[in-house]
Amino acid sequence: MKKEVYFVHFITFYREEAMRVLVCNIGSTSFKFRYFDMDGEKVLARGGIERVGFHNATMKFYVGDEKTPKVEKTEFIPTQSQAVELCLNFLREIFGDLTEIKAVGFKTVQAGEENGSVLLTERVIAAMEKYSPLAPAHNPPYIQAILMFDRLLPEIPLVGVFEPGFHTGRPEYASVYGAPYEWYKKYGLRKYGYHGASLRYVTGETIRILGLDPKVHKIIACHLGGSSSVCAYKDGRSVDTSMGLTPQSGVPQSNRVGDIDAFAIPFIMKKTGFSMEEVFHELVTNGGLKGISGTSGDMRDILEEIEKGGPLADRCRLARAKLIYDIKFYMGAYILLMGGVDAVCFSGGIGQKEAMLRAEVLCSLDFLGFVLDEAANMRGEQIISTPNSTIKAVVLETNEEIIVARETVRVVNGKKEE
Amino acid sequence: MKKEVYFVHFITFYREEAMRVLVCNIGSTSFKFRYFDMDGEKVLARGGIERVGFHNATMKFYVGDEKTPKVEKTEFIPTQSQAVELCLNFLREIFGDLTEIKAVGFKTVQAGEENGSVLLTERVIAAMEKYSPLAPAHNPPYIQAILMFDRLLPEIPLVGVFEPGFHTGRPEYASVYGAPYEWYKKYGLRKYGYHGASLRYVTGETIRILGLDPKVHKIIACHLGGSSSVCAYKDGRSVDTSMGLTPQSGVPQSNRVGDIDAFAIPFIMKKTGFSMEEVFHELVTNGGLKGISGTSGDMRDILEEIEKGGPLADRCRLARAKLIYDIKFYMGAYILLMGGVDAVCFSGGIGQKEAMLRAEVLCSLDFLGFVLDEAANMRGEQIISTPNSTIKAVVLETNEEIIVARETVRVVNGKKEE
Repeated sequence: MKKEVYFVHFITFYREEAMRVLVCNIGSTSFKFRYFDMDGEKVLARGGIERVGFHNATMKFYVGDEKTPKVEKTEFIPTQSQAVELCLNFLREIFGDLTEIKAVGFKTVQAGEENGSVLLTERVIAAMEKYSPLAPAHNPPYIQAILMFDRLLPEIPLVGVFEPGFHTGRPEYASVYGAPYEWYKKYGLRKYGYHGASLRYVTGETIRILGLDPKVHKIIACHLGGSSSVCAYKDGRSVDTSMGLTPQSGVPQSNRVGDIDAFAIPFIMKKTGFSMEEVFHELVTNGGLKGISGTSGDMRDILEEIEKGGPLADRCRLARAKLIYDIKFYMGAYILLMGGVDAVCFSGGIGQKEAMLRAEVLCSLDFLGFVLDEAANMRGEQIISTPNSTIKAVVLETNEEIIVARETVRVVNGKKEE
Repeated sequence: MKKEVYFVHFITFYREEAMRVLVCNIGSTSFKFRYFDMDGEKVLARGGIERVGFHNATMKFYVGDEKTPKVEKTEFIPTQSQAVELCLNFLREIFGDLTEIKAVGFKTVQAGEENGSVLLTERVIAAMEKYSPLAPAHNPPYIQAILMFDRLLPEIPLVGVFEPGFHTGRPEYASVYGAPYEWYKKYGLRKYGYHGASLRYVTGETIRILGLDPKVHKIIACHLGGSSSVCAYKDGRSVDTSMGLTPQSGVPQSNRVGDIDAFAIPFIMKKTGFSMEEVFHELVTNGGLKGISGTSGDMRDILEEIEKGGPLADRCRLARAKLIYDIKFYMGAYILLMGGVDAVCFSGGIGQKEAMLRAEVLCSLDFLGFVLDEAANMRGEQIISTPNSTIKAVVLETNEEIIVARETVRVVNGKKEE
């Protein structure tokens, strides 16, 4: 792995040059990439592998924005290292060689004090290892993939765009827990916040679409999907967000618990006879919307069960009502902490598709002068507030990859964040 | 202990009669009582024992509202049972005999499904035992004291006024966690909320003082002391409150953690080598304002350190800012969930004494038309908002004992809650 000193000359060399950037998004069993020409932000290639580590891993690689995959296979792909090789082989095949790749960016999750968008060096990899307990599903496969890129493309800078980076710069009192101070200072026990790439994109787009002042604004961003965050974005900064130390906290997630009294753990251990590990395993696999509703936790399944009045319909209604309640809870907290709100944006699978949920969340803002454009909301238009509404509301598709690509260019060009 | 059937005749017998009621407030090492003549709610006697279980337990018993204790001693008081005996001996000595005591009320903490204000029967005691893990410092000493009263005053009804009772009747989605549904239904894993007696008193007083409609109102109650709760009280009901399953959650407490990501537990175990029990012990003894500030956690110590610019001044400022931030957080959430707010009330040691903290909390409501009466606030007057403020703010001393006494009378008279 590269050491710090490696980059000194490098950065000088690439400064201001037009670039092609490969972006990787890695999950516990998935590998996704997008290859950009940053001149015009064109997608040159893209693809993904699902079920990495399984015998029936599926691989679909595309050229440009073509709808039909150039490569489509089901085979055993044992590790993320193999996934990296397959990706680079595909790019070599399509583009001749790999010398055009000027940098690789990763939507990395957690490295504690090594936050923000940074060159991936030995020190950063060590920090990712140190903080693996906070992101056990993500940090190990990311480290594996990064080391493979380093081996196969030893001359190319690798950049980590860490998800909590977007939430740095918050006042300290907004990220500290009421725990022993030493745990905060020595072990990095604090609220980090996640979904940084997505939230950066959607807040930027909200400002652009509504023509808000880029320096003076108050936005609530609701990224609602399999994993959900509510974020307070004021005057160009994230000032608070619903996820804390880990992505298990905040509003209820598809199958992860969201906020819970920590003292529930020994209580449930005593009642069930489960070990601590078993209780936490339940909370990340059978919690959230899945745990309450008894379905998969996918909002489509929940809505279907409600609609058909199945045996789980009451539990499904409760799960949905709990999600809406918790979104309103964070939204209200953040509006007071920002001293008002100009706009609310929705993104993610639930945020984009669930018009009724958006309506229920937004109507809690009626007392502040919000007026929903019901027809626009039902049609899923971009702006769903009326022209005379005091607060604007928009629906957006997020684009995390372009944020990672832009951040990668910024870091490689040695530019400071604006 | 009395069985259910015991009370059938009893209730008929005492119906509508004027009553003397003894109220007990029991902590892990403390025993406090107040003896009321409910005709005019006069205090006939009162007293307390600190350090029960220790060789230097101190006992101070008073008659009526006298300032000088009638009895003042330091001696070994090994158990709550002894404390009960000492209390009853004192009352017998002052009032001749104990036949005038018509009921004993307890500010009990947690019995799961046996919630609200109820006659203490075998079944309720069993539920208190079952839910002891949620209130380990309170349920066992309460059970001990209750059984002793039952032995010494076998004819007298004993009433438990459970702290979460005030918060029942909330919508289910406001009290469910995103955990496996079975844990909720089978084991009672849900948000209970605490500080019921105090919150009932201060919300009632807020309505009375401000002349609000007792049926239509939106109040935020901030009970801020060694232990703190923020509560949303709408149209005569608690609709949400900051403490959840246990009194360790919510805003940071004096030495207890408040809200924290549950996944911090395994993370800190790994980092420190502590057992789970040790981590939780730290969170309830060296957490909250104490943990952040490095002082005792008492706000007076925190302010003193800030004022003198001591070595812990920065940490003290952080602890105080964190408390203020979290109060505002809950306040904002609840204002949105209620669709506005008519009044905010402050009680408890911090709530009553810390004018600057009140000012900082309340000024976050400026955007809703709140106007602080700065002079009234600094002087600690009862109403601290200006006459033209859209939202009213009051400062109150709480009176948990009178609530327990009233609830005890209500239960013994067999009346339903209004």
